[in-house]
Amino acid sequence: MTASFIPPKRILMGPGPSDVPQRVLEAMARPTIGHLDPAFVTLMEEIKAMLRMAFKTENALTFPVSAPGSAGMEMCFVNLVEPGDKVIVCRNGVFGGRMLENVKRTGGVPVMVDDAWGAPVSPDKVREAFKANPDAKVLAFVHAETSTGAQSDAATLAKIAQEYGALTIMDCVTSLGGTPIHLDAWGIDAAYSGSQKCLSCTPGLSPVSFSQKAIDKIQSRKTAVQSWFLDLNLVLGYWQSAGKRTYHHTAPINPMYGLHEALVILEEEGLENAWARHRAMREKLKAGLEALGLKYVVEESARLPQLNSVYVPEGVDDAAVRAKLLADFNLEIGAGLGDMAGKIWRIGLMGYSAKQENVDYCLNALKACLK
Amino acid sequence: MTASFIPPKRILMGPGPSDVPQRVLEAMARPTIGHLDPAFVTLMEEIKAMLRMAFKTENALTFPVSAPGSAGMEMCFVNLVEPGDKVIVCRNGVFGGRMLENVKRTGGVPVMVDDAWGAPVSPDKVREAFKANPDAKVLAFVHAETSTGAQSDAATLAKIAQEYGALTIMDCVTSLGGTPIHLDAWGIDAAYSGSQKCLSCTPGLSPVSFSQKAIDKIQSRKTAVQSWFLDLNLVLGYWQSAGKRTYHHTAPINPMYGLHEALVILEEEGLENAWARHRAMREKLKAGLEALGLKYVVEESARLPQLNSVYVPEGVDDAAVRAKLLADFNLEIGAGLGDMAGKIWRIGLMGYSAKQENVDYCLNALKACLK
Repeated sequence: MTASFIPPKRILMGPGPSDVPQRVLEAMARPTIGHLDPAFVTLMEEIKAMLRMAFKTENALTFPVSAPGSAGMEMCFVNLVEPGDKVIVCRNGVFGGRMLENVKRTGGVPVMVDDAWGAPVSPDKVREAFKANPDAKVLAFVHAETSTGAQSDAATLAKIAQEYGALTIMDCVTSLGGTPIHLDAWGIDAAYSGSQKCLSCTPGLSPVSFSQKAIDKIQSRKTAVQSWFLDLNLVLGYWQSAGKRTYHHTAPINPMYGLHEALVILEEEGLENAWARHRAMREKLKAGLEALGLKYVVEESARLPQLNSVYVPEGVDDAAVRAKLLADFNLEIGAGLGDMAGKIWRIGLMGYSAKQENVDYCLNALKACLK
Repeated sequence: MTASFIPPKRILMGPGPSDVPQRVLEAMARPTIGHLDPAFVTLMEEIKAMLRMAFKTENALTFPVSAPGSAGMEMCFVNLVEPGDKVIVCRNGVFGGRMLENVKRTGGVPVMVDDAWGAPVSPDKVREAFKANPDAKVLAFVHAETSTGAQSDAATLAKIAQEYGALTIMDCVTSLGGTPIHLDAWGIDAAYSGSQKCLSCTPGLSPVSFSQKAIDKIQSRKTAVQSWFLDLNLVLGYWQSAGKRTYHHTAPINPMYGLHEALVILEEEGLENAWARHRAMREKLKAGLEALGLKYVVEESARLPQLNSVYVPEGVDDAAVRAKLLADFNLEIGAGLGDMAGKIWRIGLMGYSAKQENVDYCLNALKACLK
């Protein structure tokens, strides 16, 4: 007989999931209702409105995909890219590479703009890519690279795309709620995020938002969207507010309760206050990390407050330290991905984890493990 | 300011979600851990083992997709069907139609076997389809049609496919845990289900299982799987037990706690006992529905115990009755889908909802509303 699973109580300071407030956990445990229940429609409408607040957008088509951020990414690409469409893909870490994979699988023609891991995307290179490919239909970039902790200048990148009449797809999985995003002011056409980063909900949902220009492209496609589950033409009927909702799939009811509560908490704090808290906590963490002699991977000007990548000091065993942090301190920090595996640590200050107690605890634990 | 969302307490006797036991809800609220935490690996392994128990399979590749049943369906089709592959699709309700949509979007060549809504799939017609298309690579059918409550003879259908060397994809969204499934004995190559039906977990996860023959097909594909999120070649690395797990996507941690607890409850009861309970409760419900003068849609021999479709009596307003059941009794039953909208009710006895209290409550509420 299998016993019930009682998870250890961790302090989550990796690249996500982040610590989940008790209020969100309790919301997850409220009684399940049907996905066609009138009360669920109310829940959906409130989630959509609060996501618009978080994204700083008026986009009607703003909602959580019923699956993790990878599915949100795929929704953007399979709907906005048709076979033969040229897509300029900026790659400065793991998730830009995943965008390339998505473009290939839609039959799009990728044009790569590569920057070093840890560097932000270079607007100059993007401009060059558009000059060489003025027929590019889409620009895709990662706002906050979760694999390195680098932040790119989304406003400038989106502006270049607009000059060439291209749509913009932005990955903001790690930025939403933690560092400024202005979807409408920047003119982003499609954005996807995750529930488990700076929103401090449990993983499994991917907030997305699409501009009218994006919808126009989707509705004028010549080919069918290759995914049934992610086809916005079908999902639109499910998530639309006006008139009769059509059944598409069964939404994950209880995780929606959790996301709703996480957004209520964000609304209570105020989005700008949340951004400021992330910055403030990051200053404290930075001072402590530097006192420990740790060096940042990313240049100061491009550092994300919510994800601090530092080099593993020479002679220190990456895996052993992380194992000790977990075993002795119940503290999770992130390892490096891809080329940076074994070389860096990624210390998250996301959402509910961005607080003084966590900063102090993490610095003390690191100090003990680096002795 | 948006207030926290407090859902009404419903009794769920529609086509899913079903009532969720308090133990499962409480499991959902346990502290979140990271998806790369060693404790999460334990959780995954236990879930996989218990799903094998529920599917009656030894398939190593048995796990929950991090998304609803529709994504589980899509995972089966995008991995097992390559452009040009002939697929025999049995359609006797909404979900057979959705299979057709999936085949089209993979570039497969569908061969339709149509039966009336409410009837089971005809093995004779399937045999004819194979005779006319001996080169068909895949047979796809729905074991338990959620739109009608009809059960098809999976063992016989799979046997025909085997005679022609074709793989079998089976939708068992509504059957898993509620009515006998013998994946290995029947020789099913790919099956997908949902967490929110007879397993009585919250919606959002899709248990799937793949045979070695299915894996061989996937590994010998000439074309890339069109979905990145659902590509089993990548997911395999994430869910495999042996060796180093590679990062693919962030799993929905807390819903996994819920699924684990739901499976522990199933294990405690015993799978065969759960099947017997569904049958027993269905006999009681049937007697009561017939006493109310309600007529079943499906012939006795093909009726699913866990989903009872009855015709809306002449002169009765479908929507008004369902609205009254919800408003006055907090009771959800299902409406008809597609061609059956307005014509039938679907009364679920799934998982935790399959109990005497629910049967009595539902019959009394219906009696009051039909007066």
